[in-house]
Amino acid sequence: MSVEPAERERRRAGLDEALAGEVREALERGDTALAAGLARTLHPSDLADLLQLLDPEQRLQLLRALGPDVDPDTFAWLEEAVREELIEALGPEWSGRIVAELDVDDAVDVLEELDEEERRAILERLPPPERIAVEEQLRYPEDSAGRLMQRAFVAVPEYWLVGQTIDYLRATPDLPDDFYDIFIVDPRMRPVGGVPVSRVLRSRRQVAMRNLRLKELHPIPATMDQEEVAFLFRQYGLVSAPVVDEEGRIIGVITVDDVVDVIQEEAEEDILGLGGIHESDVYMPPLQRARRRVPWLLVNMITAIAAASVVALFEDSIARLTALAVLMPIVAGMGGNAATQSLTVTVRAIATRELTDANARIMLLRELLTGLLNGSVFYIVGFLTALLWFGDPWLAAVFGAGMLANMVIAAVGGALVPLVLRRLGLDPAVSSSIFVTTLTDMGGFFTFLGLATWLLL
Amino acid sequence: MSVEPAERERRRAGLDEALAGEVREALERGDTALAAGLARTLHPSDLADLLQLLDPEQRLQLLRALGPDVDPDTFAWLEEAVREELIEALGPEWSGRIVAELDVDDAVDVLEELDEEERRAILERLPPPERIAVEEQLRYPEDSAGRLMQRAFVAVPEYWLVGQTIDYLRATPDLPDDFYDIFIVDPRMRPVGGVPVSRVLRSRRQVAMRNLRLKELHPIPATMDQEEVAFLFRQYGLVSAPVVDEEGRIIGVITVDDVVDVIQEEAEEDILGLGGIHESDVYMPPLQRARRRVPWLLVNMITAIAAASVVALFEDSIARLTALAVLMPIVAGMGGNAATQSLTVTVRAIATRELTDANARIMLLRELLTGLLNGSVFYIVGFLTALLWFGDPWLAAVFGAGMLANMVIAAVGGALVPLVLRRLGLDPAVSSSIFVTTLTDMGGFFTFLGLATWLLL
Repeated sequence: MSVEPAERERRRAGLDEALAGEVREALERGDTALAAGLARTLHPSDLADLLQLLDPEQRLQLLRALGPDVDPDTFAWLEEAVREELIEALGPEWSGRIVAELDVDDAVDVLEELDEEERRAILERLPPPERIAVEEQLRYPEDSAGRLMQRAFVAVPEYWLVGQTIDYLRATPDLPDDFYDIFIVDPRMRPVGGVPVSRVLRSRRQVAMRNLRLKELHPIPATMDQEEVAFLFRQYGLVSAPVVDEEGRIIGVITVDDVVDVIQEEAEEDILGLGGIHESDVYMPPLQRARRRVPWLLVNMITAIAAASVVALFEDSIARLTALAVLMPIVAGMGGNAATQSLTVTVRAIATRELTDANARIMLLRELLTGLLNGSVFYIVGFLTALLWFGDPWLAAVFGAGMLANMVIAAVGGALVPLVLRRLGLDPAVSSSIFVTTLTDMGGFFTFLGLATWLLL
Repeated sequence: MSVEPAERERRRAGLDEALAGEVREALERGDTALAAGLARTLHPSDLADLLQLLDPEQRLQLLRALGPDVDPDTFAWLEEAVREELIEALGPEWSGRIVAELDVDDAVDVLEELDEEERRAILERLPPPERIAVEEQLRYPEDSAGRLMQRAFVAVPEYWLVGQTIDYLRATPDLPDDFYDIFIVDPRMRPVGGVPVSRVLRSRRQVAMRNLRLKELHPIPATMDQEEVAFLFRQYGLVSAPVVDEEGRIIGVITVDDVVDVIQEEAEEDILGLGGIHESDVYMPPLQRARRRVPWLLVNMITAIAAASVVALFEDSIARLTALAVLMPIVAGMGGNAATQSLTVTVRAIATRELTDANARIMLLRELLTGLLNGSVFYIVGFLTALLWFGDPWLAAVFGAGMLANMVIAAVGGALVPLVLRRLGLDPAVSSSIFVTTLTDMGGFFTFLGLATWLLL
């Protein structure tokens, strides 16, 4: 039996696509028993992935066929959109039974996304202790440490010995399944230190817990934003940290595996925000997708009209020299690309706190110089391109100058806009790109068409 | 002393900007002693952040003033670009002394980025056991589990009791500082199970380790890519996992805190790739920035020329109806935005493995329908805009039709291009956007100007 588990596990890294296909085919043939048989042995997170691959109808068929064999954790692994849809379809009775079996932090995670009514219907069906725990945790602000934490933790007084601690742990049944740090608290339950479990295990029974205390502790206020929590964990390489109330008393614990999800979530938000998407809509039907994407496109339409009205100022020039209409999208487009580069670097540097007020000015200066350098390169590239294409050195010189000017606008705008948005308390990842591309579109059209009108016509 | 550490720590969450400013001013005044005094108490990761805020000259001054007070871990926390610069400036003697004090995985992290010569110069200065360990680990492929793992782990035979295990841990000095799981190995050192440390601590001495064994183990081949490793940790909520050689023998361990960095890194790569940036250049001087950004812009220039040459096909039409030149950037730009939405969702869904071959076809179909729905909305919006602006219902109808067509091209192209790139083994995050915007630019110009020429002129 020695090597077998390793091999079995290697095959099972993630949901097997062939198996997913078989399940789908079985469901299409109406053979729900076979589908359930195939899905029964899956890890909850793989089962969640499988459900996500299926149609809404098939999801319900499979879940009903699996019946009580469904590990409640499966629901904690589902994407929000799919989970909401299933909870609605399965009804509060079934959903309540599942939520009751989840850890409190997972239950909070599931319930916080539901609307008020559905949430209440499920909460009413939870056993009182779970309900109170979940309700208490839901009272913390969204995306706060209070929502993220687990309420089960291990804390001992400073004066305890390792032996006492071990005896307490062996004798107390109501502890978290796994934990990484044992917190040392003062008489008022305020954390004054933390000891990694492995260090307790390696110490003799007579050693005082006080003497094992870690040099640094990072108590997290329950109201702290999860993004800040993730920053703390990354910054100090934490594995777990106590969550404290306003009086500094320990009320829960956050562990690094919770933070992994937050980091993924926050990066996801930035990526989607930069792409003009509020949240991933992979699991949404087309109508819902379109409804969510249209508002952003409407905002873009307004800015596109603004940019086009710059072109309208120069309609006469274009009528006299149509080459302008051919070249102007290049100036605007190249500015847009250069701006996206500068913008992306800036947004990321703000998110990772590499860019702060302390070095904003020097960063802007560097971007300006980068823009000038890139602009010089594309002055030449643009000049040669237009010269070869239209054979007119004056037109080529104006085109190059438009490129140069717009590259500078792009570089500075790409860095300045997110910095200003951050100052205004807005999320630079979400709204920067629209301002910046409007800037480079208008800048590109105006500099190029303006110069051409002034110098060539 | 009870509440004090908590408060002190709360103030120290991340580098204090005021302190960073004071250090910088002290260095500008030449008061390196004051600067060092202020920086001396910082956590290594905060000191790394501080160094990154300074000019290259100031960094060296501060490090020299701090002298042996610099925690070697500071170097593990620095950004690649800054670290390389400092190692070069400090020379192999000083760098070697620092690297020798790092954990092997951090040393590997530092050395893998250096060029062959610098790396050898530092390796030669390491004490033989460290050097061998580092060299062995550097032999694994870049971004592999072998590079990521720690070589110190705790493994015990199946038949051991909890008591034996604890005695072994207490008696053996050469173990990792902290660990989360104790691995159970067969006589050939192949991992057959894992036990969380907290479970050992809570069990009586007479219990066999075998009976505490976790149900699932996920051994990671040393050659596995770190992205795959991060996927496994997230998918199965792992805290630590054994790394195995080709024969399945345990050779190291990867813990969730290593994975946190990988997740951040991989998300970063996707964000920057979508923005046309190869790696973050916040710490690079303008000339280096420009040199790294120009190639991408040159590629964009070629595609912009391709799109402009579509416009050139219709120069006569534009000369006769200059309103076309005003409206055409709107059609192209709106297509670009719609495509970015579809592209972003697709690239993320591929990265998170929500989108696989199993559901690619249905995703494409949904994007097509989304494009048709969005297109219908913007047919109307476009029609009304052009009608109000130019008062010509035929022009307005053609503009609306151009919008509709380009929205469909955008939606399908945005989803299809990353899927095709993935099939070809390319990274969809890096190269998709250029193909897709070229598509929507050309599509927008061609459909709008083509329709206008055919129907209006």
